[in-house]
Amino acid sequence: MIKRPIIIDTDPGIDDAVAIAVALFSEELDVKLITTVSGNVSLDKVTYNAMCLLKYFGKEEIPVAAGASKPLLREVIDASDIHGKTGMEGFDFDEPDMSKLLKEHAIDAMRKVILESNEKVTIVPIGPLTNIALLIRTYPEVMENIEELVIMGGSTGRGNAGVMAEFNFYADPEAAKIVMKSGLKISITPLDVGLKALVLPEDSEQIKLMNKTGEMFYSLFKRYRGGSFSTGLKMYDSCAIAYLLKPEMFETAFTFVDIETKGELTYGCSVVDLRGYLKEEPNATVCIDVDAQMFRDWLMDRIRNCN
Amino acid sequence: MIKRPIIIDTDPGIDDAVAIAVALFSEELDVKLITTVSGNVSLDKVTYNAMCLLKYFGKEEIPVAAGASKPLLREVIDASDIHGKTGMEGFDFDEPDMSKLLKEHAIDAMRKVILESNEKVTIVPIGPLTNIALLIRTYPEVMENIEELVIMGGSTGRGNAGVMAEFNFYADPEAAKIVMKSGLKISITPLDVGLKALVLPEDSEQIKLMNKTGEMFYSLFKRYRGGSFSTGLKMYDSCAIAYLLKPEMFETAFTFVDIETKGELTYGCSVVDLRGYLKEEPNATVCIDVDAQMFRDWLMDRIRNCN
Amino acid sequence: MIKRPIIIDTDPGIDDAVAIAVALFSEELDVKLITTVSGNVSLDKVTYNAMCLLKYFGKEEIPVAAGASKPLLREVIDASDIHGKTGMEGFDFDEPDMSKLLKEHAIDAMRKVILESNEKVTIVPIGPLTNIALLIRTYPEVMENIEELVIMGGSTGRGNAGVMAEFNFYADPEAAKIVMKSGLKISITPLDVGLKALVLPEDSEQIKLMNKTGEMFYSLFKRYRGGSFSTGLKMYDSCAIAYLLKPEMFETAFTFVDIETKGELTYGCSVVDLRGYLKEEPNATVCIDVDAQMFRDWLMDRIRNCN
Amino acid sequence: MIKRPIIIDTDPGIDDAVAIAVALFSEELDVKLITTVSGNVSLDKVTYNAMCLLKYFGKEEIPVAAGASKPLLREVIDASDIHGKTGMEGFDFDEPDMSKLLKEHAIDAMRKVILESNEKVTIVPIGPLTNIALLIRTYPEVMENIEELVIMGGSTGRGNAGVMAEFNFYADPEAAKIVMKSGLKISITPLDVGLKALVLPEDSEQIKLMNKTGEMFYSLFKRYRGGSFSTGLKMYDSCAIAYLLKPEMFETAFTFVDIETKGELTYGCSVVDLRGYLKEEPNATVCIDVDAQMFRDWLMDRIRNCN
Repeated sequence: MIKRPIIIDTDPGIDDAVAIAVALFSEELDVKLITTVSGNVSLDKVTYNAMCLLKYFGKEEIPVAAGASKPLLREVIDASDIHGKTGMEGFDFDEPDMSKLLKEHAIDAMRKVILESNEKVTIVPIGPLTNIALLIRTYPEVMENIEELVIMGGSTGRGNAGVMAEFNFYADPEAAKIVMKSGLKISITPLDVGLKALVLPEDSEQIKLMNKTGEMFYSLFKRYRGGSFSTGLKMYDSCAIAYLLKPEMFETAFTFVDIETKGELTYGCSVVDLRGYLKEEPNATVCIDVDAQMFRDWLMDRIRNCN
Repeated sequence: MIKRPIIIDTDPGIDDAVAIAVALFSEELDVKLITTVSGNVSLDKVTYNAMCLLKYFGKEEIPVAAGASKPLLREVIDASDIHGKTGMEGFDFDEPDMSKLLKEHAIDAMRKVILESNEKVTIVPIGPLTNIALLIRTYPEVMENIEELVIMGGSTGRGNAGVMAEFNFYADPEAAKIVMKSGLKISITPLDVGLKALVLPEDSEQIKLMNKTGEMFYSLFKRYRGGSFSTGLKMYDSCAIAYLLKPEMFETAFTFVDIETKGELTYGCSVVDLRGYLKEEPNATVCIDVDAQMFRDWLMDRIRNCN
Repeated sequence: MIKRPIIIDTDPGIDDAVAIAVALFSEELDVKLITTVSGNVSLDKVTYNAMCLLKYFGKEEIPVAAGASKPLLREVIDASDIHGKTGMEGFDFDEPDMSKLLKEHAIDAMRKVILESNEKVTIVPIGPLTNIALLIRTYPEVMENIEELVIMGGSTGRGNAGVMAEFNFYADPEAAKIVMKSGLKISITPLDVGLKALVLPEDSEQIKLMNKTGEMFYSLFKRYRGGSFSTGLKMYDSCAIAYLLKPEMFETAFTFVDIETKGELTYGCSVVDLRGYLKEEPNATVCIDVDAQMFRDWLMDRIRNCN
Repeated sequence: MIKRPIIIDTDPGIDDAVAIAVALFSEELDVKLITTVSGNVSLDKVTYNAMCLLKYFGKEEIPVAAGASKPLLREVIDASDIHGKTGMEGFDFDEPDMSKLLKEHAIDAMRKVILESNEKVTIVPIGPLTNIALLIRTYPEVMENIEELVIMGGSTGRGNAGVMAEFNFYADPEAAKIVMKSGLKISITPLDVGLKALVLPEDSEQIKLMNKTGEMFYSLFKRYRGGSFSTGLKMYDSCAIAYLLKPEMFETAFTFVDIETKGELTYGCSVVDLRGYLKEEPNATVCIDVDAQMFRDWLMDRIRNCN
């Protein structure tokens, strides 16, 4: 089997951690690079977290490069209310070897991986899109060898950071706009499907017993405030991996998506034109629904598959 | 029983026609005045339509005054794709006596009714809010004797005219903003409940046989494109009357609502801050859900009650 | 000689006072009505000030009607740093008979004057444009009998209230936009000519000795902070009257003018497209320069002509 | 004498050509790198032009790196109406050796130069600020070793590309905003001084006879539409070099500058808050006037100094 080469651009974050684990242990995927971006918490913390995860999973051979420490135009916001002060509160990781962090910037590392790959590379951005925007604008030559962006971000309706804006797009609206206008093949798993992609308490109890990974997840889940442990934890970022590996669990629409960057109350809103009001050409495949049971089953299987 | 004095500000429109009928034949309400506003179709047409309805219902004693022929700032948009070219396509009304139309502007007529009323007056705006904004800004002294605005407009999520904007607010976003900032007591039945306030085909067949009003509605319904005859026709405007008369069929939230007037893709979006992101004081009671069955039963009863 | 019928819409204000005096004592003009608007200071104060001026000038037969107490959308700002707390600080006026104030709103009074006039009426708005916008939107039928608007407002360059916005337009940008889009014949004496329309200290000393009016102006001038007594006081509002009576002292351009209502740093900026970047049809005659000496001579003559 | 190390970021452009020449032949300056950016004409053309100039001046040892081919968010606009289709129309340059163009992106070349320099490096951006914004956001570590940005761009009043926006800032407003917010030491020679920094016809005739460089300039000047040959050609970009070398010819203000990125009519306007309306800390030294005669003399001397 040819593994699909991917780069994960991320800001771990608890649900990022799950998505990363699932990707790392998926036979169908070849994670070439992990890049980090300021988002859920500061760049230093998310980079440290990424290194912790790789060490914990025994995957330190996968290179990590740190990227943007702030959004293009707006000030940094963070989500430590959701993920705790460290971004992955709730579990004590062993100190990773930070000297293994690449010296290059994320976009330089991405550029190299993309240009050197025989197969076109898929990027899976599950944090704010600052790195991807910088990559596209600085090194547009990479676009030819990018297969697709599979993005966790945006919303087809209301938001979870602004009234009408989802966190990742709200955190860097201009970057999101640059990406949406790029002409690249784009798929999006927005907030709306994330809200349905739940881990229930009974799942958590099972996960705890599955393996070392599950044990760690259980500790993080106890602390995660993306939903609630008792009524369901939202696995936003895993949806992007799920879409990569099992797209049939999603209902999708190929449609036009743009980002509001001028509104005073709607800054960062993803405008998903499902009914064609704007009369623009479609530029993205947007997941508008998910089979929640299929997702749960899939996720449990995948975590069971970790070590 | 003391009847509640109301003014209906409207742009009929097929679903406006139903709302008006229900209000006119409700014992609990005393419709003091009907004012018209450019909206679904042009001011001339909606004013003519209002006069047709009153004649048809045998209620020509109720005064009608025409208001704004265009929005405050934006250009006129119309909704003749939904309501037909005349705004009430599908039924041949007798020519009304247009000489009975008040010579005064809607806001002058409203001012008089409001200031002369012993009871505080409730206004029920079910079209764009241009008249109400002009009234408030020109005659702020009326505000003291306004009980409440019960508005059909806005959305808690996506739109039906812009991607993120509901028709009435999209048609005059600045007016909507003036109204939301007015300090008046405001209740809103937004798009979202309208989408669930359906007349099904079997209801239509019953309505047809109820009375003269029902016959007429049936003809209009055959032509109405707010939803579809076969899967359910959306009775947006009747929700405002329903809220007045039977609020218990709605789930509501007392929350902060503002209108986006600066966005390039979200102009006219009603920003309903259900989760408190904006940290503003609540200024409106917003219906966020409706008991669809209770609404249907109520509406059937009410139409049965017409002549 | 047929006198040109005018309505002055104003927010006195010291330089308003001069403009009003000059207009009242000009044989060429028939001041039919003075309307007031919230601007330099609150509506109450500017209305009181207008009444004081008429009493002082012995012109109490001229009707005054109060208009808008706040801008259409934005919050009230004021200019008491320029005109003092009362708006006409520096002179003790006799108490006017406030019972002579019209009971009607400014726009109702304007409507009556305009519709009843045999000659088309010119409106001279020298405050924020809230009243004019309300008039146009509520009673569009008056537009046919309006000869012209001669407006003091806007700027061809930088501002004096926002960085890029002149006070009158900044105080109600949406009203200014409505007016500019109205299709009425419009002439503008913007900030830029006002900056050159100076009263120098030697002029003030002469004015003081001219007559009762001059005496009063001298006292106001000592307190006025629109410019400085020693280097020149800016007679913004008199420019509008000067343009009416002696247009040859101005260099003008017939051009397109629109108002920025969306900018976060440039809200209220008048965009005067002298070089045609926007490719729009001209909608206003804008004074882009004034013969400063001719203005001074003219103003001195005119004040000498007061009583 | 220690030469001041500079990087010129440019989009030649006829007035860019003059600025580059002056800088290259100035003993006080050590031009370490020339980087190019899409602006007056496309990136390919401006890069080719930069190489042509270096060859013509016999300065091919100075490295050139190409940067951004489009602005961050907005579409490319160009200024070929001013500079001709090639960007330097009017003179036939010898084909340069394009293999000498650095393989790296402008921001990578800048990064290397800046980090390797013992002295802090001054950057002189005389085109749109896309490269500088990408540099700052991608490699914030360079900021410590940047002495100053000396920028040609913006305006204290009206524009020359939009009604209120100068070309360089209008071409990439978001990049300009990123730069203005960067915290770097910034000096600006805006449009307003460029309008006064003229080469008159008699100057051109002298320049023609000075040397090889002057000959070439004369041919370009005949074609340049930045002003007119007969009434004065505007040397916008040379003002930045002039400010570097002889700041005493400028009157300056240390003030707050921000960029409007939300306005619909004022997009790209540089808001230079000379009077402190915004109550923000100063972030730039802005040249608000130039001694035009001193500039002319200086420029003639400097061109005479070329070969």
